Amino acid sequence: MPSGEFDFIRWIRGQQLPSEMVLLPAGDDLAVLRWPDDDLLLVGTDQVLDGVHFDSAVHSPREIGAKAMNRNLSDCAAMACLPAAAVASVALPRGTGIEYARELYTGMRIAGERFGCALVGGDTGSWSGPLSVTVAILGRAAGIAPVKRSGARPGDSIFVTGPLGGAMRGRHLAFVPRVTEARRLAATGLVTAMIDISDGLARDLGHICRESGVGAIIDAGAVPIHADAVAASVDGRSAFDHAAGDGEDYELLFTASRGDFEGCFRIGKVIADGGLFVRSEGRLAPLEPRGWEHSL
Amino acid sequence: MPSGEFDFIRWIRGQQLPSEMVLLPAGDDLAVLRWPDDDLLLVGTDQVLDGVHFDSAVHSPREIGAKAMNRNLSDCAAMACLPAAAVASVALPRGTGIEYARELYTGMRIAGERFGCALVGGDTGSWSGPLSVTVAILGRAAGIAPVKRSGARPGDSIFVTGPLGGAMRGRHLAFVPRVTEARRLAATGLVTAMIDISDGLARDLGHICRESGVGAIIDAGAVPIHADAVAASVDGRSAFDHAAGDGEDYELLFTASRGDFEGCFRIGKVIADGGLFVRSEGRLAPLEPRGWEHSL
Repeated sequence: MPSGEFDFIRWIRGQQLPSEMVLLPAGDDLAVLRWPDDDLLLVGTDQVLDGVHFDSAVHSPREIGAKAMNRNLSDCAAMACLPAAAVASVALPRGTGIEYARELYTGMRIAGERFGCALVGGDTGSWSGPLSVTVAILGRAAGIAPVKRSGARPGDSIFVTGPLGGAMRGRHLAFVPRVTEARRLAATGLVTAMIDISDGLARDLGHICRESGVGAIIDAGAVPIHADAVAASVDGRSAFDHAAGDGEDYELLFTASRGDFEGCFRIGKVIADGGLFVRSEGRLAPLEPRGWEHSL
Repeated sequence: MPSGEFDFIRWIRGQQLPSEMVLLPAGDDLAVLRWPDDDLLLVGTDQVLDGVHFDSAVHSPREIGAKAMNRNLSDCAAMACLPAAAVASVALPRGTGIEYARELYTGMRIAGERFGCALVGGDTGSWSGPLSVTVAILGRAAGIAPVKRSGARPGDSIFVTGPLGGAMRGRHLAFVPRVTEARRLAATGLVTAMIDISDGLARDLGHICRESGVGAIIDAGAVPIHADAVAASVDGRSAFDHAAGDGEDYELLFTASRGDFEGCFRIGKVIADGGLFVRSEGRLAPLEPRGWEHSL
């Protein structure tokens, strides 16, 4: 006998941990939260699609669920806010079975709980299409002003929190969102703009520059190259090219007016004139945005 | 030249109306809202899938976008809260084109604006799958306690806000969420439980009864039958059967301790013993839950 949506909802309710913020958890039309007084609310959504962000023939439902939640947690990191609560919509290929749905949910729940983010509601449906998982997340400023993309100023240094490139070799499914690092960085008051690297260093730096009305010069030798980028360079593109273009690293890319940040890599400088450049062996060349963009 | 995701995001930003609540609109990693002090936050999500909730070969992108938003607004109605803000994720079949995406977005935006609900963020991707549109919505209590499914008590009367059945003949794409009616009803303080009819009267009444630990008797002659239910009865099932089972009506189903509600139909009574029954020509029979349930 095929299990139904409502059995699944009942199961989910049994999994939920009590939370001070959650007055009425999943199971009604909407969840009811008590939002902390005088705290900014941050909200966004991000989906993962079979064949684009994961491959359901290869990856487990728990990994897929975790990635869906982690991409959203990474958006919280990019703004330096505290994850608070999330809701999830899942479109399952018909006949997938409730066990698979439970694994997806468990992947999301565990990823959220790591940062105190309760999964408070959702929608589960089945269709003739492939698997898609959409999470919407709520975050709170909790004493730290949200860090926007638009605050970079000429003269700022550019940093990343970790090595880049080749993430699609596997890391894209097993990353830890940089929520803790983001809060620590933003608490210094020195960070002027921040983004998480999902589209690729070149493209995400482009987002910061466009929003800030500035340009940037990256020092090729200073960009930390992940071993996966080296491994990926068997395709003939350089490891730097992979580091600058691949995306799905989910490291933080940020600018700061001054300061050294432990564990972070200073990779370049913000300039007044528009345009992205890379300095390599003394020569300056345009940094092409090779990263990911959905073509519509 | 195919248009890209980022062109689309720039276009969206040009469409947004200023709102007191929205400090930072779509375009950064997350939107930033100033949540009203001391106001409960309600949150949920609902998706519409091609071949299930709409047919992209028949329905326009503007209708599809409107339905995605309206289903979420209808969840707000079910809790009697005020819609406040929404985010949307769209998975487009590859090659769909930016014009189609704009129409989807416009459908969502216009549906939201009718109830003061700003679309503050989203995620747009393309894939090899069919079209799916997912909205997550935030609502606020704004002085009226959220109405849950669990408050129905034996002796309460059962009401619906409008005629039911046959909605899939077209109404399911063009309904007006009962937000205004819900606020007016809940403000009386007499409504004990409420839900919007998406799964069908029998099944949604089942949700209220299960959550409230009660049963119900519906008076078949009192259920308002939509002309679409009559038209749908050419399939051999009675018009009542369609009214009780079809779903996607998006009328409100509620229980109240007493009172008459202008424009609403009193269709039955809450009883202490579990079970759903229908009274027809003096005979009592079980009311079968024929409505929609996704099989997983």
